[in-house]
Amino acid sequence: MAEAETPNRSPEIRKDKIHNRWVLFSPARSRRPSDFKAKSNPQPNNQTECPFCAGHEHECAPEIFRVPADSTNDWKIRVIQNLYPAVSRELDFQNPVSLVGDVAVSGFGFHDVVIESPVHSVNLSDLSPAQVGEVLLACKKRIAQLRSCDSIKYVQVFKNHGASAGASMSHSHSQMIALPIVPPTVSARLDSMMEYYKQTGKCSLCDIQPNELLIAESAHFISLVPFAATFAFEIWIIPRDHSSHFHEIDSEKAVDLGGLLKLMFLKMSLQLNNPPFNLLIHTSPFQDEPSYAPSTHWFLQIAPHLSGVGGFEIATGCHINPVFPEDAAKILRDVRIS
Amino acid sequence: MAEAETPNRSPEIRKDKIHNRWVLFSPARSRRPSDFKAKSNPQPNNQTECPFCAGHEHECAPEIFRVPADSTNDWKIRVIQNLYPAVSRELDFQNPVSLVGDVAVSGFGFHDVVIESPVHSVNLSDLSPAQVGEVLLACKKRIAQLRSCDSIKYVQVFKNHGASAGASMSHSHSQMIALPIVPPTVSARLDSMMEYYKQTGKCSLCDIQPNELLIAESAHFISLVPFAATFAFEIWIIPRDHSSHFHEIDSEKAVDLGGLLKLMFLKMSLQLNNPPFNLLIHTSPFQDEPSYAPSTHWFLQIAPHLSGVGGFEIATGCHINPVFPEDAAKILRDVRIS
Ligand SMILES: Nc1ncnc2c1ncn2[C@@H]1O[C@H](COP(=O)(O)OP(=O)(O)O[C@H]2O[C@H](CO)[C@@H](O)[C@H](O)[C@H]2O)[C@@H](O)[C@H]1O
Ligand SMILES: Nc1ncnc2c1ncn2[C@@H]1O[C@H](COP(=O)(O)OP(=O)(O)O[C@H]2O[C@H](CO)[C@@H](O)[C@H](O)[C@H]2O)[C@@H](O)[C@H]1O
Repeated sequence: MAEAETPNRSPEIRKDKIHNRWVLFSPARSRRPSDFKAKSNPQPNNQTECPFCAGHEHECAPEIFRVPADSTNDWKIRVIQNLYPAVSRELDFQNPVSLVGDVAVSGFGFHDVVIESPVHSVNLSDLSPAQVGEVLLACKKRIAQLRSCDSIKYVQVFKNHGASAGASMSHSHSQMIALPIVPPTVSARLDSMMEYYKQTGKCSLCDIQPNELLIAESAHFISLVPFAATFAFEIWIIPRDHSSHFHEIDSEKAVDLGGLLKLMFLKMSLQLNNPPFNLLIHTSPFQDEPSYAPSTHWFLQIAPHLSGVGGFEIATGCHINPVFPEDAAKILRDVRIS
Repeated sequence: MAEAETPNRSPEIRKDKIHNRWVLFSPARSRRPSDFKAKSNPQPNNQTECPFCAGHEHECAPEIFRVPADSTNDWKIRVIQNLYPAVSRELDFQNPVSLVGDVAVSGFGFHDVVIESPVHSVNLSDLSPAQVGEVLLACKKRIAQLRSCDSIKYVQVFKNHGASAGASMSHSHSQMIALPIVPPTVSARLDSMMEYYKQTGKCSLCDIQPNELLIAESAHFISLVPFAATFAFEIWIIPRDHSSHFHEIDSEKAVDLGGLLKLMFLKMSLQLNNPPFNLLIHTSPFQDEPSYAPSTHWFLQIAPHLSGVGGFEIATGCHINPVFPEDAAKILRDVRIS
């Protein structure tokens, strides 16, 4: 891991106002020894048999759509069903699981995979800004379809890159899970942003002053390390204009975001040696209370996994981050992409 | 991982009423392939130089106390300061970090390590019930000391076993972090248990009917797989009698708990092949509102790490568990310890 710049700085406890949770910052933690052999970062097997590669479409669960729509072998993106879904599109959500009443419902929902390239070795960061934009627009299109299902309340788009970030497949892809409930972290975020709005009359993300936390800017977005970052070198990309839902993005903004996202991936890869990471789209529920509209603002989170978590984080929901956000932002800002 | 018994069962979404969060259950998930080489479970280096071993006391941060108190080389347990603490006992909590007001405080607190045995290769499960009880009583004693500090609101006791559960040191130990804030997951738990109490007039843990979720019982405790377990084969150990704070435990109950804990470790180790796990003590804040007393009930959680988590869990706070709790409980109940 890159050295924090101020290893002797005292620990600090900061509040993430967006999620209403605390993070402990302690540079001393990065110096602790380990008597376990270094965790190997598992590498993909040499792959001739990947179902996500072009030519293997028949090994996948059914396709939902492809980009371009009328392509045959020359598709660029495929949105398909997940063959091992966490929730099932075949269940009747209206029908609660018997016996357990309000504490269990049938696992109704949609679990899809977005294959981001036909070529096994191509990552998002290898694509052009316009191509990354097309992946974002494919997500937007699928979300628009999911909105037509009344029982779906929230769609989580996420990407796992690298085995320690959870990936089981190495071919570049994202996933989407459409849920009949609003998940707890999302509710907490909505409530916390609403609280800020009530107190200040402003949206908490419109009101952000990045200053020394800024990494880069584009026409429509800014990227920064959040003040109370959960993970070392965590990055947020925030639309400049107020917007509650990711699916409100248009083509021009998608290409602009594609460029900034690509830049963040390149900086992270160069500085942190292609770390495992998660990319998360934080948006608002579909049946948004109208009163939430002025206070919620969608954004992207990139969470690199430079170290694991332990029992303290699981028990308390407080993470321990050894790198102060100002230091991480400076390091990432200074990485030059030639 | 042990096979779930009903791999073709439909997915279900269950609510954990204690933490007020949802968990997705989907046996299909356990069949998904991976094209990453199997994650190796990092093994400890051959260790001659462990600072936690007897004879290496001088390599450790200062000792707080040892058990027995008057022992020299023949100590059984040592409670010491953490040399790389997440919070610092030297800071002035009253003094908020300048400039950032209510969203950052100095990282005041206590971060201690409990060395559970003088011998490197001895695990908690190798100790007798009375010896495990002594470790629990050492935690109780240290918590009693921390209570005398007015700024401390909550103490989290946790154990990381195995590198994938976060451990950096392989010598058997637990940790304790005493915080000047009540962490978010703890607040959510207190609020959720209070809500149950308001609705039913009962404590949610006193009211639990384990039935098919039961694993084992002792004189003063029961162990079970919770109805909405976050992790596959997760175990809770709950005191039969209502009690808000772990530190209310007495010697007799500590030995009884030691025996049940040892049994759970042995069953888990045998059935799941000595998995990495976290052991967590969920208790109540010190300055407990008196009104919380009837609704909060302390308990232990054992969280085995049979698979990692990914972006979905980080984004939503919803975990995906491939093993239904009834199936996990039956499997663990049936493991015979000779
Ligand atoms: N000579 C010495 N004297 C005193 N103390 C010493 C010492 N040498 C090492 N230590 C301390 O011993 C502790 C050993 O703890 P663990 O192995 O349980 O995990 P660790 O705290 O490293 O991190 C795991 O747990 C934390 C909290 O859950 C997560 O943040 C993290 O990601 C995860 O790896 C370390 O905290 C270390 O600072
Ligand atoms: N032929 C095929 N056709 C269609 N789909 C196929 C397929 N073969 C495999 N798949 C699906 O492709 C997906 C690949 O996803 P990832 O590699 O991002 O992580 P995965 O979902 O396995 O789990 C990670 O992410 C989840 C959610 O965060 C965590 O629960 C988990 O612990 C972590 O490992 C899998 O969900 C799999 O079911």
